[in-house]
Amino acid sequence: MSAGKAVKTTPTTIGQYLIRHLEEHGVRHVFGLPGDYILSFFGLLEQSSLKTIVSCDEQGAGFAADAYARVAGLSAVCVTYGVGGLKIVNSTAQAYAERSPVIVISGAPGVREQAKDPLLHHKVRGFDTQRRVFEQITVASVVLSDPQTAFDEIDEAIHAALAHKRPVYIELPRDMVHVAGRQKHRRVDRTRATDRDALKEAVSEATAMINAAKQPLILASVEIHRLGLHDELLQFAEKTGIPIATTLLGKSVVRENIPLFIGVYEGEMGIPATREYVESSDCVISLGVLNTDLDTGLFTTHLNRGRTISANIDGLAVRYHQFVDVPLPDFMQALLKADIRMRSPKGLPNPESPSPFQARPGAPMTVQRLFQRINTFLDDHTVVIAEPGDALFGAADLMIHNDAEFLAPAYYTSLGFAVPACVGAQLARPDLRPLVLVGDGAFQMTGMELSMAARYGLNPIVIILDNHGYGTERPMLDGPFNDVQPWAHQHIPALLGAGQAFIIRTEDELDRALTSARKYTKGFSILSVQLGAHDISPALKRLTESLGRRVAKKT
Amino acid sequence: MSAGKAVKTTPTTIGQYLIRHLEEHGVRHVFGLPGDYILSFFGLLEQSSLKTIVSCDEQGAGFAADAYARVAGLSAVCVTYGVGGLKIVNSTAQAYAERSPVIVISGAPGVREQAKDPLLHHKVRGFDTQRRVFEQITVASVVLSDPQTAFDEIDEAIHAALAHKRPVYIELPRDMVHVAGRQKHRRVDRTRATDRDALKEAVSEATAMINAAKQPLILASVEIHRLGLHDELLQFAEKTGIPIATTLLGKSVVRENIPLFIGVYEGEMGIPATREYVESSDCVISLGVLNTDLDTGLFTTHLNRGRTISANIDGLAVRYHQFVDVPLPDFMQALLKADIRMRSPKGLPNPESPSPFQARPGAPMTVQRLFQRINTFLDDHTVVIAEPGDALFGAADLMIHNDAEFLAPAYYTSLGFAVPACVGAQLARPDLRPLVLVGDGAFQMTGMELSMAARYGLNPIVIILDNHGYGTERPMLDGPFNDVQPWAHQHIPALLGAGQAFIIRTEDELDRALTSARKYTKGFSILSVQLGAHDISPALKRLTESLGRRVAKKT
Repeated sequence: MSAGKAVKTTPTTIGQYLIRHLEEHGVRHVFGLPGDYILSFFGLLEQSSLKTIVSCDEQGAGFAADAYARVAGLSAVCVTYGVGGLKIVNSTAQAYAERSPVIVISGAPGVREQAKDPLLHHKVRGFDTQRRVFEQITVASVVLSDPQTAFDEIDEAIHAALAHKRPVYIELPRDMVHVAGRQKHRRVDRTRATDRDALKEAVSEATAMINAAKQPLILASVEIHRLGLHDELLQFAEKTGIPIATTLLGKSVVRENIPLFIGVYEGEMGIPATREYVESSDCVISLGVLNTDLDTGLFTTHLNRGRTISANIDGLAVRYHQFVDVPLPDFMQALLKADIRMRSPKGLPNPESPSPFQARPGAPMTVQRLFQRINTFLDDHTVVIAEPGDALFGAADLMIHNDAEFLAPAYYTSLGFAVPACVGAQLARPDLRPLVLVGDGAFQMTGMELSMAARYGLNPIVIILDNHGYGTERPMLDGPFNDVQPWAHQHIPALLGAGQAFIIRTEDELDRALTSARKYTKGFSILSVQLGAHDISPALKRLTESLGRRVAKKT
Repeated sequence: MSAGKAVKTTPTTIGQYLIRHLEEHGVRHVFGLPGDYILSFFGLLEQSSLKTIVSCDEQGAGFAADAYARVAGLSAVCVTYGVGGLKIVNSTAQAYAERSPVIVISGAPGVREQAKDPLLHHKVRGFDTQRRVFEQITVASVVLSDPQTAFDEIDEAIHAALAHKRPVYIELPRDMVHVAGRQKHRRVDRTRATDRDALKEAVSEATAMINAAKQPLILASVEIHRLGLHDELLQFAEKTGIPIATTLLGKSVVRENIPLFIGVYEGEMGIPATREYVESSDCVISLGVLNTDLDTGLFTTHLNRGRTISANIDGLAVRYHQFVDVPLPDFMQALLKADIRMRSPKGLPNPESPSPFQARPGAPMTVQRLFQRINTFLDDHTVVIAEPGDALFGAADLMIHNDAEFLAPAYYTSLGFAVPACVGAQLARPDLRPLVLVGDGAFQMTGMELSMAARYGLNPIVIILDNHGYGTERPMLDGPFNDVQPWAHQHIPALLGAGQAFIIRTEDELDRALTSARKYTKGFSILSVQLGAHDISPALKRLTESLGRRVAKKT
């Protein structure tokens, strides 16, 4: 953020200022649903450069905005008070957990209306109930009830979203939308200064460690995505010849078909060769990694802190000591310039390239064969969006062609993300075509948000892994609660007035449907792949056995 | 709650105790979706008398549970941690606002797992984030992490739900489900004692006021529903000959075809004759009324506190003075026994009885004619469930045959309620057939929860008022954000594998479809009624004009 930049002196309203801020940060779409408390702001959005994207339910808007923020660096979701805002608590919580900077803009009753604390529709307990809820799941929450401070509060909230890469909450009482803010407002630079001396020492120590190491390794993850450091990461690896592994949450921080990429490291869940290489490294350069249960294969990873350089948004550690105010981007830039010796490692455990897929006519589909086939289908312009469950675990082994072409909530793991997310992702990156991998259970949550794709002319390919229930849970504890009512997905295009759909039982049917989907670019394609109720990927098998041991069993 | 009742001494686990409590309070169904943190409790539910009802998305379970609580007096919704719990914040907030006692049971990571604060999937900020959120929207929130206190906490939470008629939150860490609680546990009677002297004084004052009045009137609303005082209300009216009006939120606290019923009072929104009668009363006996904006026609009601007796769950007022610890049920019982003189009021403004409907072949459907036709369709076994919007406002004029046969969130007004609510309502009262009135916009939010109806063999009749958008908002401020992607609803039965559907453009088509729906009892019927984008009911016209004036307009 530029320091002390003066706002032009024509009277600017609070609503206009908020919109201008979003525009300046490259936001081009706002997701949401109208309602009387936010209606005048929707009217104002229509007059701006921002395009309003209306979802079926607020939940869909929340997930679409989460995906948009992951791809574009910032997003906004705009909802009415109470019945709108409280529907996106879960999607906002996910954005918090996985560092996705979503601006939640909620309407509210007017300041004057609230004065005598009347029972206005959409109110829960007090008029501050919604803000109190969002306080728990955002890094800043402001209510723009005072024109003298409103611009400052907008600055502060958006700065917080960008600095922490986490959601913020802006509540806009409806009688404040068209009120002028403080016209002499100047933006204050809120950026914390880098401690240059600390940075120098950290880089010097890191350089020495790396140069002394026999088998250094980069382990890169989600924060590299959020900070947009893909190019720097690749340059650093190529300049030094140090191989890269990623974690599941960070999959595709680097394109996966380069010689230095050695796979997704996820402890016992992952591919053994990758694991062995990572765990035998004598210097792990950990960049933007969160040590979540799923990213560590349920804490089955074994990394020695005494051999690790660990850089994150929230701090930097070299071995056992911490550096304050050394941001990850500065550290990466400094590493790029550091005197690190080039090496040419041999025999790296690169993931297998997709092997040509020969469909066996009439052969029933299996999860394993499905992912083998998808792997041959991906190209440079595919963004894979994987729903938690076997869609995600199976997708870990797909070879992603370019950086930032894989999206999945691999830590918070909320079901219902993938379909609305594909709308957000394609609007943020119209050059990419989404390939959505979603289970039949999750599809019933938000799959009808394909209605958004129909409305806004998008063309995702949606592959439903239809195994008739919550397949991830069956190995832990099965019962009728894991079953899902069968849906005949072939009828969705007729219902939504767009798209095409296929029911796929055999390998040759899959082949034909994928060929058709590739050609059919004017709308969405649904490929409902019929799988056995107990057919799961090898990765999921390993995971659920481990999870199952943790579900308290009756003795 | 009975005082000091001993729990039998065989070792009872925390999970079993919770289930037994629900059973004792007449709960027969639990709504929800499984997830690994709640899975073992789902397993336990399977072994109990409670039937688990699985929805498409947690939101649907939340709304179904809200409706179930309104009809049956208590309900439970059971979800996993984070991704489950945080999806039902909105439905729980509605239950809070409209006094619906829903027990939210959420799984959580085990107490032992949480010990070192690791990044476990579904965690947001801290392990207490979800509880902190629910604290804002419930009257009790407990975490059953200590076997020594767990039974007490369950008692306390369920007592709070029943006493306040509001939701409570019970978090059950997964390693506590099968742990035995304190076996010497005794339930403590938490009921606050009625102040008998205060009650006596209040009833004496009320009796004098009523007997001195020329035109006393009962205004009854939602809390009568929640306290199950329908019979007492009717007896009181019939014993004294005092006429009854209701508010929108309390519609059907009394059956509407009795001579003493004079309509729904809602200020300028309502029928003028009802309004005149109510406002000319010299003694209003207000029973369980919440003075919300929609119930007061946006605060256009005119009642003089100096002529009002006002009894609520939270307190009793006679004219300008308050009585503490005089509960509404005790007050009603005492009023029934009081020496109030019988009268025989003449010329009451009874709502018009449904007049025979003659379909005009080929005549396009209008909102007004739709409601006229529906009015002739209702019978003693129909429960009308109205979604906020014109479905609700138009439904205000329907004549409901029996008490408690109308359900609508007429204060909090969350869209997405009606379809999942019909599942909850019909499971709670299998003798009733739901008639759902829902807009096309709201249907896109949760309409696919008809999947639940298909799965559990229910047969609601769902009338979609398809006016191609958010019709309630168009008169306030129109724009493309008020449009909704058209859905061809006739394809839903094929998609869900159940039910039948009709697209209705004319009056004779409506006639035929209703006749068919009446006969077709094995599944749901969808009647998608095609309406003009700007065709709204007279009540909505009055309301939106008033609301529109409050939407801050750009000058």
